[in-house]
Amino acid sequence: MNLPSKLIEDAVTEISRLPGIGKKTALRLALHLLKQHEAHTEALALAITRMRQEVKYCKTCHTISDEEECSICKSHRRDGSIICVVEDIRDVLAIENTNQFNGKYHVLGGVISPIQGIGPEELHIESLINRIDVAKEGEPVKEIILALSATMEGDTTAFYLSKRLKDKGVDISTIARGIPVGGELEFTDEVTLGRSIMTRVNYSGQ
Amino acid sequence: MNLPSKLIEDAVTEISRLPGIGKKTALRLALHLLKQHEAHTEALALAITRMRQEVKYCKTCHTISDEEECSICKSHRRDGSIICVVEDIRDVLAIENTNQFNGKYHVLGGVISPIQGIGPEELHIESLINRIDVAKEGEPVKEIILALSATMEGDTTAFYLSKRLKDKGVDISTIARGIPVGGELEFTDEVTLGRSIMTRVNYSGQ
Repeated sequence: MNLPSKLIEDAVTEISRLPGIGKKTALRLALHLLKQHEAHTEALALAITRMRQEVKYCKTCHTISDEEECSICKSHRRDGSIICVVEDIRDVLAIENTNQFNGKYHVLGGVISPIQGIGPEELHIESLINRIDVAKEGEPVKEIILALSATMEGDTTAFYLSKRLKDKGVDISTIARGIPVGGELEFTDEVTLGRSIMTRVNYSGQ
Repeated sequence: MNLPSKLIEDAVTEISRLPGIGKKTALRLALHLLKQHEAHTEALALAITRMRQEVKYCKTCHTISDEEECSICKSHRRDGSIICVVEDIRDVLAIENTNQFNGKYHVLGGVISPIQGIGPEELHIESLINRIDVAKEGEPVKEIILALSATMEGDTTAFYLSKRLKDKGVDISTIARGIPVGGELEFTDEVTLGRSIMTRVNYSGQ
């Protein structure tokens, strides 16, 4: 694209670095900002800069938090003996929305991905192990739920974690893979269907 | 969405003001920025702020330009007797990419849209008429090409412009509407097909 202005070109280049946004969309967004009042652009620029500079992470579970410890980790109503291990904060939000989980979380900050150069040491795995060790003296951790994506990277991470946690004396479980609620059998892929038969559960009438 | 941090919430709110970006995508983009180096976010914030504050428009055709007059308006190789009227700078870029047009442009800055509260006075229409009047003494404008979108708003704007320019002694044309190159007859909608028959042109073998 041959843009007639260096200013626009710089803005388009920077916007198109964001995931899922190409040059054409970036230009559309830049032109949108130009049509809006200047205060809009300033508010956007300030919000992202402040977020990046001032964001804090919970010292226990590594989720994003404005305080040193997040509200879930601080809460006495949540069951500290069950820790749900997730990839990032979006997964915490998704699970919280279900209202089905009353334990605590541990945010890994990603999954093991050799292609993207992410190894176990880039993730918050040591602090999870440390957390289990420290908890032994107070409220011991009984179960670790691995709630990772059903992708190659997610499965690799789950396998690695299960090996690292083997001797810690905690139950390790993983969220169920199967046919989504409302899903039809004939349109389900063979791998999912096969797995849902292998991991069948007692019929409880629900 | 119940975000655990005010900083993230502000950033998500501002990002989701952009067209075509909802809360979920905004959160994805915000988390992406958090994973990147701080310099990325700063560069993005600076680029959009500078663009918004310092951008200039060509005094003649109103396209975005770093100088007072854009390179197309300044060029002596371009035919100033033909002016192509477009909605915004993206249309200029699209037409320039075809390499089929050697005249000059006039950017309206939008189209007439009563729903969005955009009337003729919000657009650069007076300056187009003024441009034609001024040019009479030097290199007179012979033709105005209306290259507007084939939408209700585009057609309304074209109709309004054709009425305003009626007595100016210039030819008024509009870009052809018809079947796209490579398009198949049977899949073309009736309105387009009907119009392409009504506005048929001499077969030139091309």
